[in-house]
Amino acid sequence: MIKHLSVATSGQGLYDITTQLTAQLADVSIEEGLCTLFVQHTSASLIIQENADPAVQDDLHNWLNRLVAEHDPLYTHIDEGPDDMPAHIKSVLTATSLSIPIENHRLVLGIWQGVYLWEHRHHGGTRRIVIHFSE
Amino acid sequence: MIKHLSVATSGQGLYDITTQLTAQLADVSIEEGLCTLFVQHTSASLIIQENADPAVQDDLHNWLNRLVAEHDPLYTHIDEGPDDMPAHIKSVLTATSLSIPIENHRLVLGIWQGVYLWEHRHHGGTRRIVIHFSE
Amino acid sequence: MIKHLSVATSGQGLYDITTQLTAQLADVSIEEGLCTLFVQHTSASLIIQENADPAVQDDLHNWLNRLVAEHDPLYTHIDEGPDDMPAHIKSVLTATSLSIPIENHRLVLGIWQGVYLWEHRHHGGTRRIVIHFSE
Repeated sequence: MIKHLSVATSGQGLYDITTQLTAQLADVSIEEGLCTLFVQHTSASLIIQENADPAVQDDLHNWLNRLVAEHDPLYTHIDEGPDDMPAHIKSVLTATSLSIPIENHRLVLGIWQGVYLWEHRHHGGTRRIVIHFSE
Repeated sequence: MIKHLSVATSGQGLYDITTQLTAQLADVSIEEGLCTLFVQHTSASLIIQENADPAVQDDLHNWLNRLVAEHDPLYTHIDEGPDDMPAHIKSVLTATSLSIPIENHRLVLGIWQGVYLWEHRHHGGTRRIVIHFSE
Repeated sequence: MIKHLSVATSGQGLYDITTQLTAQLADVSIEEGLCTLFVQHTSASLIIQENADPAVQDDLHNWLNRLVAEHDPLYTHIDEGPDDMPAHIKSVLTATSLSIPIENHRLVLGIWQGVYLWEHRHHGGTRRIVIHFSE
């Protein structure tokens, strides 16, 4: 079963989509199976991370921004802005697809795990995620 | 359903396999489902990236080559050539498996997304990808 | 079908779980399908790597430890120890989920590929992996 999720982002950073994902799962009612997420962009990505301390998300974001700097003289793809090529690199270093098993009608997320869309562009936008549920 | 794909590479870089993958999907005729790719190597990997401007692929390649340098004195696994240990690291930083949902008989790739095999060895070779299609 | 795997780790490093995974597959007896692993932690991750030369695993570990250093002044999430924030970053740069097709009752791993849990904390612990098998 295929579902769609739209995430409106207002700039770089991690957006928790766990609640929306859980709602989609409630809707399809699968006792045991697999949930696969796919983000239809190459300048935003998916990760699973700690949802307890927001400082973790800030540190992740700042660390990756330092590793993949803007205005790197190496870049030749610069027409779409200084944050575009870094966004593609960050997308490659994280994930475009993620799979989470379903058990007892629930995603088997660990106690501190949340599912995040990571927006890598400054201007943000509407990000589309396709979700596949199977039994 | 399992399918196999062989990609002949002639050296480091990104090889667009979207057309071959689409042909495999046409062959199995699935209206709605999931396509999972798995590369049977640890010195080549899989990514989804922008297919519009070839400069993106060059920049990705050059950026990762700078991050994961050859002849790093840290390496002890050096018997298979200066590009072998960097290839393993690059494989870990990108992806060995990727999943793409199928909707209306099509991979739900975004408008600018292509599927790539990333060859990390200078000499290249024949790279084997196993594809699993499910409904 | 859902299975569970517990991996006891005694500190940072790569733990080969290929044998346990193969045993789980033998138990479910699937001729053709997909095996998806999911680690229920954000300070440990999953990778597929070369299982021939143990030096590859040492180099991977040392390289990533240098890239993602402890005591980086950038970190603000420091309450859980100097290895905690690096562990979250390493988890993001590697993988939380992995999928491996099954063909002829076997995981289609390449000849040199092993499946590893990567422990990123010094103290280690009991790491839980959920495995989904489908036909």
